[in-house]
Amino acid sequence: MLSKNKIKLITSLNQKKFRDETNMFIAEGTKLVKDLSTTFRCEILVVTPEWLDNNTPIQADELLIANYEDYKKISNQKNPQGVLAVFRKTAFVMSLQEICSELSLALDEIQDPGNLGTIIRIADWFGIKQIFSSQTSADAFAPKVVQASMGALARVRVHEVDLPNLLSEFRKKAPVYGTFLKGQNIYTAPLGSRGIVVLGNEGNGISAEIEKLVTERLFIPSFPPGNSTSESLNVSVATALVCAEFRRRLI
Amino acid sequence: MLSKNKIKLITSLNQKKFRDETNMFIAEGTKLVKDLSTTFRCEILVVTPEWLDNNTPIQADELLIANYEDYKKISNQKNPQGVLAVFRKTAFVMSLQEICSELSLALDEIQDPGNLGTIIRIADWFGIKQIFSSQTSADAFAPKVVQASMGALARVRVHEVDLPNLLSEFRKKAPVYGTFLKGQNIYTAPLGSRGIVVLGNEGNGISAEIEKLVTERLFIPSFPPGNSTSESLNVSVATALVCAEFRRRLI
Repeated sequence: MLSKNKIKLITSLNQKKFRDETNMFIAEGTKLVKDLSTTFRCEILVVTPEWLDNNTPIQADELLIANYEDYKKISNQKNPQGVLAVFRKTAFVMSLQEICSELSLALDEIQDPGNLGTIIRIADWFGIKQIFSSQTSADAFAPKVVQASMGALARVRVHEVDLPNLLSEFRKKAPVYGTFLKGQNIYTAPLGSRGIVVLGNEGNGISAEIEKLVTERLFIPSFPPGNSTSESLNVSVATALVCAEFRRRLI
Repeated sequence: MLSKNKIKLITSLNQKKFRDETNMFIAEGTKLVKDLSTTFRCEILVVTPEWLDNNTPIQADELLIANYEDYKKISNQKNPQGVLAVFRKTAFVMSLQEICSELSLALDEIQDPGNLGTIIRIADWFGIKQIFSSQTSADAFAPKVVQASMGALARVRVHEVDLPNLLSEFRKKAPVYGTFLKGQNIYTAPLGSRGIVVLGNEGNGISAEIEKLVTERLFIPSFPPGNSTSESLNVSVATALVCAEFRRRLI
């Protein structure tokens, strides 16, 4: 049974304001819910009787069975599978020293939820465990991002931070990389196993404030080199190319 | 003035059936229309008086000025700039010999218009001039794809073909590459400057029929190698990684 209050609570989590207030977020779908349950504590699990007939629910503080009609009131899916979880965000504490010892990503105003979800999947693929997100970027716990990240959020931690502040400290100890239309060719530039790669806004690239904090300017060559083509690559495509090159050097 | 018939003609081009029948497609926005006019002949250009005050129209067989209200009837944009072009598709004829001398892409049931647009941009970035699309893939001239490709369609030719047929002939003369979860590591496999790279469906990958025609099985390593991560990369991300590696070898 799904009470009005529960419906209100769950649908409120579509808004960042309420996710921040309650420290909770939602995810839907059998595989995604199961994947995320390995990292996040499930406070409420809502399932339809049909789903329960064919699946074993994950452990949750509260299990609610809702008929399909009620379930649709809380679902963001066109064709819901009939399982929705309310997860509690985990607080991660890291020292600057720890951050400096790995390769991480930083998001400077990434706006599109689909792009952000894809970037989290890419980080996961390339074994990147930390993403530092400016407060002006899309929220990694927005339903669209959670769905697009396809479970990668279980393995990649996204930290909302004061990005200029973090990078100001970080750059004293390890490189801050950024991609620009002019810079060192990423395929010949020296790249290490640690540092932060800054990803810029879809339309405007890396902001002036953050650009000042970049220590290594990279560019991704088109082909043939210097060829006049599309002016830019999609930010998630650029992210993949940069991560792949960092990792290729280490294999 | 925009007649009812013109509105009907233009909006019909949102459907593949009518694009195929008339051999025409539509594009919107100042930059996109200008970019595409370098390759495609413009049959009808529809502009608002406001747009015309600030811009010079491209050459077109027919120039129609429509008030904003009428313009909105033909527009697919939320915030239209006030310029829409009806272009005529160009017929490209190529010999198998020509195709075999370059690096090209083949689309095996790519379904998502956004992915397809991104793939066309990636091809453009990496100087790939031909894309061969199965008849079951999304149509490269659908408005969503045209918009997402951001002008790259002016430089990249997309051919709708009988893909199994083409690949059966092609593989006798040049390699057919495909990415799979198992195969040769793309970073150590021999790669040439010519061949066709097959891209598979978003959910199911390369189909069984096409898989049989692949001569070189590649895989993109995650990091650390063998790490259990997201099971797969988005198809446009995988495309970018493959194209980048082919081109990196040549720089």
